Amino acid sequence: MRPIIGIIGSGDNACKKSMYEFALELGDRLVSEGYRIVSGGKGGVMEAVSNGGMNSENYFEGSIICILPGLHKTSANKFCDIAIPTGFGLNRNTVIINTADILIAIGGGSGTMSEISFAWQYGKKVLCVTNFGGWSEELAGKNLDNRNENLLIPVSDIDEIIETLRSFI
Amino acid sequence: MRPIIGIIGSGDNACKKSMYEFALELGDRLVSEGYRIVSGGKGGVMEAVSNGGMNSENYFEGSIICILPGLHKTSANKFCDIAIPTGFGLNRNTVIINTADILIAIGGGSGTMSEISFAWQYGKKVLCVTNFGGWSEELAGKNLDNRNENLLIPVSDIDEIIETLRSFI
Amino acid sequence: MRPIIGIIGSGDNACKKSMYEFALELGDRLVSEGYRIVSGGKGGVMEAVSNGGMNSENYFEGSIICILPGLHKTSANKFCDIAIPTGFGLNRNTVIINTADILIAIGGGSGTMSEISFAWQYGKKVLCVTNFGGWSEELAGKNLDNRNENLLIPVSDIDEIIETLRSFI
Amino acid sequence: MRPIIGIIGSGDNACKKSMYEFALELGDRLVSEGYRIVSGGKGGVMEAVSNGGMNSENYFEGSIICILPGLHKTSANKFCDIAIPTGFGLNRNTVIINTADILIAIGGGSGTMSEISFAWQYGKKVLCVTNFGGWSEELAGKNLDNRNENLLIPVSDIDEIIETLRSFI
Repeated sequence: MRPIIGIIGSGDNACKKSMYEFALELGDRLVSEGYRIVSGGKGGVMEAVSNGGMNSENYFEGSIICILPGLHKTSANKFCDIAIPTGFGLNRNTVIINTADILIAIGGGSGTMSEISFAWQYGKKVLCVTNFGGWSEELAGKNLDNRNENLLIPVSDIDEIIETLRSFI
Repeated sequence: MRPIIGIIGSGDNACKKSMYEFALELGDRLVSEGYRIVSGGKGGVMEAVSNGGMNSENYFEGSIICILPGLHKTSANKFCDIAIPTGFGLNRNTVIINTADILIAIGGGSGTMSEISFAWQYGKKVLCVTNFGGWSEELAGKNLDNRNENLLIPVSDIDEIIETLRSFI
Repeated sequence: MRPIIGIIGSGDNACKKSMYEFALELGDRLVSEGYRIVSGGKGGVMEAVSNGGMNSENYFEGSIICILPGLHKTSANKFCDIAIPTGFGLNRNTVIINTADILIAIGGGSGTMSEISFAWQYGKKVLCVTNFGGWSEELAGKNLDNRNENLLIPVSDIDEIIETLRSFI
Repeated sequence: MRPIIGIIGSGDNACKKSMYEFALELGDRLVSEGYRIVSGGKGGVMEAVSNGGMNSENYFEGSIICILPGLHKTSANKFCDIAIPTGFGLNRNTVIINTADILIAIGGGSGTMSEISFAWQYGKKVLCVTNFGGWSEELAGKNLDNRNENLLIPVSDIDEIIETLRSFI
């Protein structure tokens, strides 16, 4: 199965222009590497990475998966190939974690915090971008408790992200 | 977005050879029509349709989606492009219903019954195959209650299924 | 732990006066037996049994548990001691099944059908009232598939229900 | 409805003797105040508070609710009046948050972190005990993002907890 990269991070309100542009380029690069992208299918970072992926020259149909809180596909952002409407509200966060082979976190408030804590509990690696504040930067390099270690890997530019992904997948 | 056809029906124990072969051919035809397939990712009818789809001459990578009860991708059958491990147990059934644009039911015991009842509650059409018994045949053409009507459409051969899908999608 | 009886059946629209009165008396008797009651916390049969239980002479505080689809306790009917708002939508049905030690089904449409099919899958007994039609009567005495047997026990009056409960608990 | 206090915090491995004793006394006091207690029903802080509550002189039957990750009541600790087996794994954490009117956090690793982040998202207050480290102490008094504020209230002894609860309920 083609590897799936999970994207978590700031939603609409907290996603500044520089963060959106970073995520846009990241999406392009991830798709060019042949990865699928999975996210929560809403605004901000989730939209930007999906947008970047879909507008990549190397875009392949089926590469953008959105795992939605609600019951209807129409609630996804417009850069979505495959919508999975769960009807589980915020609990869809764990499905994103379980579907991703590895995650990337950018900025992020309490929703991202819940996702990082679940990734930790399930033993999934999270590349935590340290350029844009939020819980991704705050938790980068930390150990959340003693049931796992070294899962929250600090990264700061896109080349480093791509190389780190290559080393793990 | 490419239409997604949901497959529900008998699992390993109750899937006889004739049912498996019917489902195998159905999977091939669905993929040839350009549809994605979503199922619960386990044995019997789910496996047969996925197997048929993946071995189709017209197979495109990313066409077979498996929404799993457990937490691990390795629990999917081997004909799976995109595994979504929910960790929701039997509650993953509603995610299959919500992800599918239309469903096809073949044979089926109490698990299939729960899926048909959720499809009814969410207003999703189910093509109920009448050749192989089970709850698919038992409920074909019936109204489960008065909150919807005519969602459980009896079908008996693959050409009829494909034509019915075309008329709705 | 005090035994918990699960109540499933017709909601507001499909709960006729005779059914409501039956359920009202049933609730009174269940509480008098010392059982807790768990239901989905909405109208019709769920409300009637809770109402009967709460107005029983033998009512003890904490006997009526409502497992709600939404996020807020205010969505429960007014005969509720302990509200459990799941935010899982219709998936809260499985939590009712798992919380009950044994279930009673009265009338019922597609929602009740899904609950009976989950009770079957989890191996829980359901006393199916045969007086008021619906899926409770339709499925009474049947085997849904071969993974279990004799779980859907036909019952027709309240004395019979109480005696059957006593024999199992 | 009687108010329900949610207890989150360190499980078996990370619950030291001093923390267990604090939680034991807390459970006793909460029940004496007439509150119900809800927790995840497992070891450590969850067990200690339930144990304290159940052994209180003022204990009333039905005051200890356990919302379990698994499908079976037998997986609860032994200080449990009402077991709610969800079958949703770690996602049962959100049900604890939604069921509690207000929460108390003691110690805690990544599981507690996920619960605090959900409480924040749902707008529920959490009294964060600052005596025993963990994410309860780390996050006490902080704002997780700008969608809410001042929900994570630092507290350091049991009298203060009881008084703070009284002021809010």
